[in-house]
Amino acid sequence: MSDFSSWVSTRQSRFEEVLKRLLPAADTMPQRLHAAMRYSVLEGGKRVRPLLAYAVGELNNAPIERVEIAAAAVELIHAYSLVHDDMPCMDDDVLRRGKPTCHIEYDEATALLVGDALQSLAFHLLSEHHLNDDAAKQLHMVKLLAVASGSRGMAGGQAIDLASVGKQLTLPELEQMHIHKTGALIRAAILLGAHCGDLNQEQLDKLDRYGKCIGLAFQVVDDVLDSEADTTTLGKTAGKDADNNKPTYVTLLGVSAAKNMAIELHREALEALDGFGAPAQRLRELADFIVMRKY
Amino acid sequence: MSDFSSWVSTRQSRFEEVLKRLLPAADTMPQRLHAAMRYSVLEGGKRVRPLLAYAVGELNNAPIERVEIAAAAVELIHAYSLVHDDMPCMDDDVLRRGKPTCHIEYDEATALLVGDALQSLAFHLLSEHHLNDDAAKQLHMVKLLAVASGSRGMAGGQAIDLASVGKQLTLPELEQMHIHKTGALIRAAILLGAHCGDLNQEQLDKLDRYGKCIGLAFQVVDDVLDSEADTTTLGKTAGKDADNNKPTYVTLLGVSAAKNMAIELHREALEALDGFGAPAQRLRELADFIVMRKY
Repeated sequence: MSDFSSWVSTRQSRFEEVLKRLLPAADTMPQRLHAAMRYSVLEGGKRVRPLLAYAVGELNNAPIERVEIAAAAVELIHAYSLVHDDMPCMDDDVLRRGKPTCHIEYDEATALLVGDALQSLAFHLLSEHHLNDDAAKQLHMVKLLAVASGSRGMAGGQAIDLASVGKQLTLPELEQMHIHKTGALIRAAILLGAHCGDLNQEQLDKLDRYGKCIGLAFQVVDDVLDSEADTTTLGKTAGKDADNNKPTYVTLLGVSAAKNMAIELHREALEALDGFGAPAQRLRELADFIVMRKY
Repeated sequence: MSDFSSWVSTRQSRFEEVLKRLLPAADTMPQRLHAAMRYSVLEGGKRVRPLLAYAVGELNNAPIERVEIAAAAVELIHAYSLVHDDMPCMDDDVLRRGKPTCHIEYDEATALLVGDALQSLAFHLLSEHHLNDDAAKQLHMVKLLAVASGSRGMAGGQAIDLASVGKQLTLPELEQMHIHKTGALIRAAILLGAHCGDLNQEQLDKLDRYGKCIGLAFQVVDDVLDSEADTTTLGKTAGKDADNNKPTYVTLLGVSAAKNMAIELHREALEALDGFGAPAQRLRELADFIVMRKY
């Protein structure tokens, strides 16, 4: 196993324990809701956003115990968005991370509440734990996550997505959608990791540019994988977007140009890290990981 | 018009303008989502929680511009819970505040996102605006609202509610449900209003006791009204709870004992205000208002 693979799996295991500790126990009331919250968050996903936060934390020597609380808040927002996104009134999907989706395993009403309560828990974490010696900076972290999650961030991106079904989007319109839908939360993971330590504005701007490129690359690769991979490999239903008549980078550009776009965004992301030197190595490797992944 | 009625309507109008200003404009992207958010929040409701926050703010001379931001955050959480609660997988209701519910006026997917985005906006408001000169205290306000909204607060109460359909609950079980479902947010409105100014712990505890009693009384009166009033007066579908085989104070105690319980809670609420003197007058009047309301 390469040094990077070992770093990834160590961080993923560690983060799983963090989530287990931070989520309400399944035997505390209301039990069914808490069990469903744990079901929807634990044992799943590549934890791309937390890995990005960990990598940024290593870049600026932020205390890991703080970084992983911030990362958990971001991951809970991500997890809630998947639960709601899978519901019948949205994507109506039955499979997620190789398991039945929350509304299939439990029921729709529970899935709705799971998403709602995971969002609240994210803000609970960001406000309860000591993440920055300056409380005003920590308040700014709360704001960062709220904006990234809301109508001008992730939820807004999903609304643009809904409105785009069956429509021919231009490339800039598709980009706008993804900058909100996926990009906002990826950037939030990076910036929240950064705010657990100290960086100047110029450095924050560079990391944000890295995050913007990597977020978009992530989506382009997702579209390519969705068009090429099979359901077992993905752990979720493949080919859904094309079936649902949703515009993707593949339907708009074709597979080959979409792949080139991912490579170009990868290059730009690495360029943004110029000047950080060796401490940014994990972020470079994560950029490779995101663009070259097979699932 | 009594002095109190005039205070209520002045505050309600003022608060409507606050909400109009704080909600994203309907012509900013994504327009449909923003329009649906405004539709779901504006021109509706008695604004009980904001009125409680205003009244507490007057008690401790907190700057009104701060109090109403905190009140707006609470009201957005309340509004989002109604939007999600009305959805087909929950109460499946078509009428709210005399208007079609959000998923009827727009669609289910939009209603889901409206709720999600309103919750984010609540935390955005609490973290963006200057609400306390001590940022650590303001972080505590964020935590208060997050806990009141989440699985150990409002969302948890709704989960208990779901699990109770068709079951015979005991009085303590019904009380547990409502302490979470309605009570948590009413108490949060009062405590957030209090935290915009200065009060000592003993005073906060008294206000919290007032809030606990008034929150429960609110629910008991709701059940009585639901069993006695008609749909036009309520502005929402009457008799739904009994139809849905949901336990209520009326089904458990009968109308007469439920009314007595409301009167007893009202008495306790007023008792908790002993020692605050004249500045707590609005809170006393609000207690009367909540128990004696007809809709």
